Amino acid sequence: MSDTKIGIVIFDKFTDVDLWLMWDLLNRVRVEGWQVRILGASETHISQTGMPVSPQGRLEEASEMDAVLFVSGPGTRDRIADEEWLSKFDLNPGRQFIGSICSGSLILAKLGLLAGCKATTYPTAKTLLESFGVDVVEQPFVASGNVATAGGCLAQQYLVGWVIENLAGGDWRDIVLKSIQPVGEGLFFDDVEKLQKLYAPAAKSAGK
Amino acid sequence: MSDTKIGIVIFDKFTDVDLWLMWDLLNRVRVEGWQVRILGASETHISQTGMPVSPQGRLEEASEMDAVLFVSGPGTRDRIADEEWLSKFDLNPGRQFIGSICSGSLILAKLGLLAGCKATTYPTAKTLLESFGVDVVEQPFVASGNVATAGGCLAQQYLVGWVIENLAGGDWRDIVLKSIQPVGEGLFFDDVEKLQKLYAPAAKSAGK
Repeated sequence: MSDTKIGIVIFDKFTDVDLWLMWDLLNRVRVEGWQVRILGASETHISQTGMPVSPQGRLEEASEMDAVLFVSGPGTRDRIADEEWLSKFDLNPGRQFIGSICSGSLILAKLGLLAGCKATTYPTAKTLLESFGVDVVEQPFVASGNVATAGGCLAQQYLVGWVIENLAGGDWRDIVLKSIQPVGEGLFFDDVEKLQKLYAPAAKSAGK
Repeated sequence: MSDTKIGIVIFDKFTDVDLWLMWDLLNRVRVEGWQVRILGASETHISQTGMPVSPQGRLEEASEMDAVLFVSGPGTRDRIADEEWLSKFDLNPGRQFIGSICSGSLILAKLGLLAGCKATTYPTAKTLLESFGVDVVEQPFVASGNVATAGGCLAQQYLVGWVIENLAGGDWRDIVLKSIQPVGEGLFFDDVEKLQKLYAPAAKSAGK
């Protein structure tokens, strides 16, 4: 069975939690060959709060991934004005799942992936996203075929759930999302045995 | 007006999102003198997923903070067995807010801060926490005076909300927590003006 590769694209001035929530959730899947990599253009990118993160791969690798997710933050405004940066991507929703959280949708729009689609974004990016001709709707998650947008940091749950369901199956989606809910509000002390699945070595197959 | 200092304590094998969600939320408060620092025992700590983070201060600084929050992860089991590490803390709920997410509660218990209290934790840490004589309840957040525990990663919202409300006021708590909700589910496009408060320079006072 071939590997399943997921890339998360970061850049300077990204919103910290918009990387780390999806990174942590995606890394809870224990399926053989499941790989999650942070992709960037520099040896180090600095988050909105000033924290450095070293990408594990180059932007060019995104074209080989099964899923590519774009983070958000003030830095998206610089990215959509940087033609050289944008030229690194050769994404294809015919063979990849492609998504964004919050203002990451601006990058999808600039790459031509939201043409004629409904999409969502962070409130502060709505007007700019509309300027690309996108029909921006007030929903946490919008999937149009293999391209999806999510708005509001915690809507990463919908975005990551969509990726996991498609690449590892609904059972993995359910247990991964359950594992971060507040105790008594979606996660319960009786769930302790179900949670063991997240700590076991990778299973033999994705169980799609 | 004196500074308001908040320390987040990390260690090896911490759960990534249990640092970064609280870090990101706490850094959204724009109050003059508001300082958030990651504290650790080494130049670099490695998360459960293998990501390095460099602390900004030493564990000994925790005793000078207005609030001290402990992250979670498999690493907590090593920490509660490490007397030298534990000896670095001189915490006092009489003058500090002290809290934990998930299995960080084990450290609070080991430091004697949960004696005779109700508390919550992650399902996989419940039995061990009970072995310290703690009354573990199936709730997302439990505050007993100035000591609070939260269980389930997303219950960081309650924990951080409690710290922000006490140190910066309820208005800051409300807008910070609103800012990460999914669009259409707590955060709305009409909130765009309210969100500007999070991007403005620090205000002159905490507005308690």
